[in-house]
Amino acid sequence: MKLYEQVADELRQRIDRGYYRCGDRLPSIRSLSREHGISIATVQEAYRLLEDQGLAEARPKSGYYVRPRPATPAMPAISRPAQRPLEVSQWEQVLDLLCASEQPGILALGRGMPDIDAPSLKPLQRALASGPGTSGHRGLAYDSLRGSQELRQQVARLGVDSGCRLHPDDIVVTTGCQEALSISLRAVTRPGDVVAVDSPSFYGTMQAIKAFGLKAMEIPTDPVTGISLDALELALEKWPIRVIQITPTCNNPLGYTMPDDHRRQLLSLAQRFDVAIIEDDIYGDLSYAFPRPRTIKSFDSDGRVLLCSSFSKTLAPGLRVGWVAPGRYGEQVLHMKYVGTAACATLPQLAVADFIAEGHYERHLRRMRAQYQQSRDQMIAWVERHFPAGTRISYPQGGFLLWAELPGDADSIRLNERLLAQGIRIGPGPLFSASGKYRNCLRLNYSDKPDARIEAAVRKVGEEATRMLLELNRVA
Amino acid sequence: MKLYEQVADELRQRIDRGYYRCGDRLPSIRSLSREHGISIATVQEAYRLLEDQGLAEARPKSGYYVRPRPATPAMPAISRPAQRPLEVSQWEQVLDLLCASEQPGILALGRGMPDIDAPSLKPLQRALASGPGTSGHRGLAYDSLRGSQELRQQVARLGVDSGCRLHPDDIVVTTGCQEALSISLRAVTRPGDVVAVDSPSFYGTMQAIKAFGLKAMEIPTDPVTGISLDALELALEKWPIRVIQITPTCNNPLGYTMPDDHRRQLLSLAQRFDVAIIEDDIYGDLSYAFPRPRTIKSFDSDGRVLLCSSFSKTLAPGLRVGWVAPGRYGEQVLHMKYVGTAACATLPQLAVADFIAEGHYERHLRRMRAQYQQSRDQMIAWVERHFPAGTRISYPQGGFLLWAELPGDADSIRLNERLLAQGIRIGPGPLFSASGKYRNCLRLNYSDKPDARIEAAVRKVGEEATRMLLELNRVA
Repeated sequence: MKLYEQVADELRQRIDRGYYRCGDRLPSIRSLSREHGISIATVQEAYRLLEDQGLAEARPKSGYYVRPRPATPAMPAISRPAQRPLEVSQWEQVLDLLCASEQPGILALGRGMPDIDAPSLKPLQRALASGPGTSGHRGLAYDSLRGSQELRQQVARLGVDSGCRLHPDDIVVTTGCQEALSISLRAVTRPGDVVAVDSPSFYGTMQAIKAFGLKAMEIPTDPVTGISLDALELALEKWPIRVIQITPTCNNPLGYTMPDDHRRQLLSLAQRFDVAIIEDDIYGDLSYAFPRPRTIKSFDSDGRVLLCSSFSKTLAPGLRVGWVAPGRYGEQVLHMKYVGTAACATLPQLAVADFIAEGHYERHLRRMRAQYQQSRDQMIAWVERHFPAGTRISYPQGGFLLWAELPGDADSIRLNERLLAQGIRIGPGPLFSASGKYRNCLRLNYSDKPDARIEAAVRKVGEEATRMLLELNRVA
Repeated sequence: MKLYEQVADELRQRIDRGYYRCGDRLPSIRSLSREHGISIATVQEAYRLLEDQGLAEARPKSGYYVRPRPATPAMPAISRPAQRPLEVSQWEQVLDLLCASEQPGILALGRGMPDIDAPSLKPLQRALASGPGTSGHRGLAYDSLRGSQELRQQVARLGVDSGCRLHPDDIVVTTGCQEALSISLRAVTRPGDVVAVDSPSFYGTMQAIKAFGLKAMEIPTDPVTGISLDALELALEKWPIRVIQITPTCNNPLGYTMPDDHRRQLLSLAQRFDVAIIEDDIYGDLSYAFPRPRTIKSFDSDGRVLLCSSFSKTLAPGLRVGWVAPGRYGEQVLHMKYVGTAACATLPQLAVADFIAEGHYERHLRRMRAQYQQSRDQMIAWVERHFPAGTRISYPQGGFLLWAELPGDADSIRLNERLLAQGIRIGPGPLFSASGKYRNCLRLNYSDKPDARIEAAVRKVGEEATRMLLELNRVA
């Protein structure tokens, strides 16, 4: 542990033990420097770390203060999906959500879109504009089947942050994370196979399960610790499961980050039953904790984890730059990439590689982590204020997506239809289930900086939900 | 028929009837203008059309001459593939070919790469560089599921040239033609289904057939008129064929263009047996005939043709901008695109749309058609000069790929291995067959402007093939 990390750790312990309470002024940089006999710069670094971890905040000309942490709201209970493998439905609902954001004037509150207005993205626009000039014909020629060498080098380097030792040749670049997930699924399954998934689960993977003639076995999932290992073990014993597909870090839609010991146990289960794991890490770099959580892949000793990610949530989705580290399934994954798209667009890859190599990625991440964490607290406050009493909400550990569970028989699909007339779209819960469960749940996006327009939209969602519940009670 | 087309038609008839022979000077622009009482500009337009059709050529300060047409070389016989549906093999060979062009210093004579050095592509580089500035955030946001509206409008407009009336909403943009073919196949089949293909056939589609658990029924194919309709009819009667996948225009690898009456008959067969047609038109705009041939899609009245194409051969493959007009299978195709890649990179689409809208595409096509046609004649001359006696070669009607059939027991896979030591890669014939047929055949690319390096390579291929045949004779 480095010196500044030791100092930060000591301050964190003092906060945890209540020596400094929420809103208290923390020791000045000068006094800490004297107290520990260390440089001003080291203390500043320690405070920057505490800021990254959401524990301290700087107030101009005044010093550092303990950051107010909102009381954790009531969270949803562990999910109870169907106890058998199912075919996936809900494509119409997904299509509806995808098309919603294409309509002008609609506030797409349900979509998984990051904030692309951040000034820290400007160097990326510059890299994109200079690419055709600096890369000459590279940008026009076929990219290599694995993807650009420059980008794979940067991805391998970033892997260290999540505990992975990857060689550039361990990585296959893809057209977004969706292609990474899709070719991974196809590489390890045959039609008719069963895929175990966390539940609720990302609809993009669920629809791929449907399209490839697979069945989804939804596993009960805890909104704090993730997929239930006991339930998973029972399912592995009972059904011919070929692969476990989960999003353990900054889960979509629940926002939890699975503890390390659960990750190790999950891996042991996969080894015992000899199944593969497809680990979706697309929001991992947006974890509010610093350093970011380790991936399951980082514990993997026999190459059974296919780690999938992209720059769609951390940078921008329109680039379509994703990647997979397929472990022992490399050859099958390459074949599936070849038959699916043959190669990725070259210029966006080179621009992203450039952006990372010049240090812009870490800077951008630091900014977005802090912004999204603040926006989370604001969004939670608004939902608590405007949604019907009895609403339960997730407490995301990263990313920019909130999950809300409405009380009673509220119906998020009908709610969504009603909101359309008011120019608002939410992410209805049934999208996240093979069988249309979570009808009383919805997903909200808080990537945009909180403003009056967004609060007004959240209020309208809450009012419409309250009205719906009143109508239901009247009928009953 | 327009006035300049009438004039061109009359000249063509005079050439065909032998009034003007190969190398003869054609009437001057001034005299034709007087003779027909029409403007100089109209005569110039007529001559431009004859140039496009490869019938006339301009000589500086001298006028127009009848273009020398080389005697058609001996062509391969109609193919005789296996008479039953087969699983596809040959992935290792394909991988080998794909990786060959990534090795520095290797002349990849077998790859399907266009000439990206043409000066008429410069406006495309400019459009790519200005995109991030002019499109603002568009380039970073998710593209719509169907693809950018601007590009779909331009593709619909271009469709008129091949006789199609397409609405922008009839088109789905894809990550290259490979994704168009791949999602089309998946949209109309289930694992275990049989796909009828021309033979030899593009290995990208063949590998997709393999990956999706389908079987390929290779149909005998004539190197001038394309797939045998009699053999296809027999196959449709005998096997549970779900879809016919062919490349009827500037076929890869044989180079033929199927006559219009064959296209109509093929469509009738598809209607009678109620199967879909996946029409790969990726080389269609590079047809040496002007106006370009009609697509099968242009005759389609009940939406059973899925027309697939891209700008990878006409412009540049690194863009990964392709498209499909899926007819009645639109919803399934959208679903397959969503689960495969979700969306395409935005900026390359906008750059291509811009390039077409400003008229650069037609100019570039005119240039490349003429260049490739000249290169074809040069490549044929070199192959006739350097390859073993008895070699048969295709006579491509468009594109930039030549197919050569070596005599006797020549083995193109071993030939390819031997050539590697000399820095040359060819496209071995077995890649183009489900079952590894066409072992004595190979594909050559003539997109680069003919130069001494390429002739030296063709000579080496010929010498090595001759050596191989001598060795085989000695053993026998």
